[in-house]
Amino acid sequence: MPGQLATPSHTGYAVRTTTLPSAAGRPIPPDVLDRLRSIVGGDHVLVTDGDVEPFARDATPLFRARPGCVVLPATTGEVSAILRMATEHGIPVTPRGAGSNLAAATIPEHGGIVLVLTRMTALKEISGDELLAVVEAGVTTAELADACAAKGLLYAPDPGSRTVSTVAGNVAMCAGGLRGLKYGVTRNYVLGLEAVLPTGEVIRTGGRLWKDVAGYDLTRLLTGSEGTLAVITEVTVALLPMPAVARTGVAYFDSLADASRAVAGVIHDGIVPATLEFLDNRCINAVEDFAKLGLDRQAGALLLFGDDGTAEAVERSLSLMASTCERIGARGVTMARDIAESDALLTARRCSLPALARLAPITMLEDATVPRPRLAEMVDRIDAIAVRHNVVCATFGHAGDGNLHPTIVFDPDDGDARHRAEAAFSDVFDAAIELGGTITGEHGVGAAKRPYLERRLGADQMALLRRLKAAFDPAGILNPGKLGS
Amino acid sequence: MPGQLATPSHTGYAVRTTTLPSAAGRPIPPDVLDRLRSIVGGDHVLVTDGDVEPFARDATPLFRARPGCVVLPATTGEVSAILRMATEHGIPVTPRGAGSNLAAATIPEHGGIVLVLTRMTALKEISGDELLAVVEAGVTTAELADACAAKGLLYAPDPGSRTVSTVAGNVAMCAGGLRGLKYGVTRNYVLGLEAVLPTGEVIRTGGRLWKDVAGYDLTRLLTGSEGTLAVITEVTVALLPMPAVARTGVAYFDSLADASRAVAGVIHDGIVPATLEFLDNRCINAVEDFAKLGLDRQAGALLLFGDDGTAEAVERSLSLMASTCERIGARGVTMARDIAESDALLTARRCSLPALARLAPITMLEDATVPRPRLAEMVDRIDAIAVRHNVVCATFGHAGDGNLHPTIVFDPDDGDARHRAEAAFSDVFDAAIELGGTITGEHGVGAAKRPYLERRLGADQMALLRRLKAAFDPAGILNPGKLGS
Repeated sequence: MPGQLATPSHTGYAVRTTTLPSAAGRPIPPDVLDRLRSIVGGDHVLVTDGDVEPFARDATPLFRARPGCVVLPATTGEVSAILRMATEHGIPVTPRGAGSNLAAATIPEHGGIVLVLTRMTALKEISGDELLAVVEAGVTTAELADACAAKGLLYAPDPGSRTVSTVAGNVAMCAGGLRGLKYGVTRNYVLGLEAVLPTGEVIRTGGRLWKDVAGYDLTRLLTGSEGTLAVITEVTVALLPMPAVARTGVAYFDSLADASRAVAGVIHDGIVPATLEFLDNRCINAVEDFAKLGLDRQAGALLLFGDDGTAEAVERSLSLMASTCERIGARGVTMARDIAESDALLTARRCSLPALARLAPITMLEDATVPRPRLAEMVDRIDAIAVRHNVVCATFGHAGDGNLHPTIVFDPDDGDARHRAEAAFSDVFDAAIELGGTITGEHGVGAAKRPYLERRLGADQMALLRRLKAAFDPAGILNPGKLGS
Repeated sequence: MPGQLATPSHTGYAVRTTTLPSAAGRPIPPDVLDRLRSIVGGDHVLVTDGDVEPFARDATPLFRARPGCVVLPATTGEVSAILRMATEHGIPVTPRGAGSNLAAATIPEHGGIVLVLTRMTALKEISGDELLAVVEAGVTTAELADACAAKGLLYAPDPGSRTVSTVAGNVAMCAGGLRGLKYGVTRNYVLGLEAVLPTGEVIRTGGRLWKDVAGYDLTRLLTGSEGTLAVITEVTVALLPMPAVARTGVAYFDSLADASRAVAGVIHDGIVPATLEFLDNRCINAVEDFAKLGLDRQAGALLLFGDDGTAEAVERSLSLMASTCERIGARGVTMARDIAESDALLTARRCSLPALARLAPITMLEDATVPRPRLAEMVDRIDAIAVRHNVVCATFGHAGDGNLHPTIVFDPDDGDARHRAEAAFSDVFDAAIELGGTITGEHGVGAAKRPYLERRLGADQMALLRRLKAAFDPAGILNPGKLGS
């Protein structure tokens, strides 16, 4: 359905179809296509329905918008030429890497050009002496992390999408992951960026230094800006020495609320471990059906705890966490005996989403986040909301960060089920905000949560976001409809 | 000398007196003063020469500009009313805390109002369960850190000015400190801000969460914005559990370049310690004259190394660093035997600036920063520059961060000495940029380094900074002359 999203919203959860401009889905004028072909070469401009279809979607269910064309540049100079022309002609440009985001952040709502950075794949430098790496936009997170690991270095951010997601995509979304509590998120590791402004200028923000206060912090401003301010073409990230040892344990509880209390107890003991993740009973069973790991199917919740560092520090940290879990009333606590067992436990957490996705055709995943001490309360609220709206909801998430992934599964052909899901999530966002939290901890706003953003930020900050957007993008061509648009 | 800075620049190092607008130093109109008195109370509006004089300066030598008046609000509401009125009347407002910055960032170059936040001193909350603290703008860094320490919590940023500097001032300047290598700088600990826009709106950015990607990262954008975008009234910072043990050692080398090689060796061994600081021979002797700590006066350089964590981890880290220093050819390596000895060693580093300040009436301190592997080269460059310009230069700094504090001492009445110092620093900045570094690692740009900012950022990024500034501050009232102005 060119010119319109396939999934109009009924409750406000999905995109605002009413704001789609008349240009959405329209063909790109022939002279513009010629110009694009002259910039990147004819093979790298896609226009047929079949060719552009994969770029009408990202990893977010239910969102789709057909772009006018898809362009795959190979150099920063090409990106600059494309953007300069797009600004001149007022053509929307939606930059993307792998499109693995879960917020509909790379859906070309307004049509125009989808600018795909996956041909820029040079891993330019990994320096152990300087503890940094320099990569082009399209290098995948796993490729970077693996290349670093081979040199005894840790690239700490590890989003669930790491095997496919690109480093620049991670930066654009400020991706999180399973090590956030101890190591922080992508933002904490971006040292410098090369980026192209919508008007074509190439800027370099930050650089190779941990400490640099010359000018406004554009590095961090672009991080998490969801492709609305500039197109990131190169990223310099900070690395850490690889910890000597990493180890994982698992504790079962009667409920997520009990597991949440164990998390609070761990922090209260002065431990900030690498990993504190939980799964509720429905996730445990979905994962067990999927991966046959020998999990306790009767448990109300599974808490995965892990740490890394020197052998002594990890031993101490794991023992303390295990005894805290026992004190809180865990049904059982097991430590991984070796790396294979550790990996199996982490797999339980990592495959939660694919496992849940097998339960029904549509899996809607959210990432409302609350202050850690409010976690048990938020879990109770989510349970009550699921009952109230009669939806099938499974919850897992980064317990240590207060970052929850309540996940509703349903059949898309059941219109009423979808409306109930949307209404439930709307209530989840309200509850998170009421408890001092936010509508998105790590997935981003995109088109999916754009209708809720003002609830979180207020009207004055929304107005400021729009002025900031205009300071970068006077013609409003870059990923229109998202964040500051 | 109202209406003009007392220290016109001859080489570009100091402020651009030619850009001072006609309003600089002019009296504030009586109706505006009445309005200010009605907002904050008559006792909190200062207008006489004697009362405003302390606010014509900050901790930066040679910079001075008389404000029209000084206003000390007690609440966010008062700040909002003042800013709204200032925007209406087009009156410059320079926000400040203790004025301990070293970049002339709080000099009211354009006159108008100096807005002093030191009456807002509520330490609102310290939460061990949530690992955060909430403070009003005027709480001092040391007060926050001490209150946290009393609860077994670490507020990691520790700028040299910590006993007097305010938390909001640290945020506005993105202050660094002695623990930057392992712990990062102020930016890494700011979770949320309450801030007042120049047009009077009160916004809340971020919040109590480590992970929150709802909207552009205004928290980090305001951090280091030097009071040019908004006035910070409340800060929420992240805390860490207090490390069990902290320990320090000292190694003497024949030269700073040798000490730099030891720093590279430590990182090469996979150690990222809390502290790696160095002093050159001139600093060692100035400190020894000042504090009588028993330092080796013949050594070319002193390297202070320290770490914290569990007893085992610290033992391992310190032993490794000590053997690396010996391998590189240290003249001697000593470990502090207890906390008192550790404190004495840290004192040697902390008192470098006051000790150097005794050598001559004027002490000009810079903080050029280079990638760590270029440190030895940068040290050699600084030595050559000092010889070329015939200046007395002592260098100390955060070796682990590549963050150098070359310090030139001279007599202000010797006009030629000052010009030589300015010319030397200009060369130092060029050298830092040429080696992939920056003109300021942690002190900020302020009025002092504003003339050099475009060398570092380029014209396109400077233009973007100005557009960002205008998005926040359409009337250009907030700290005009700094950063994006």
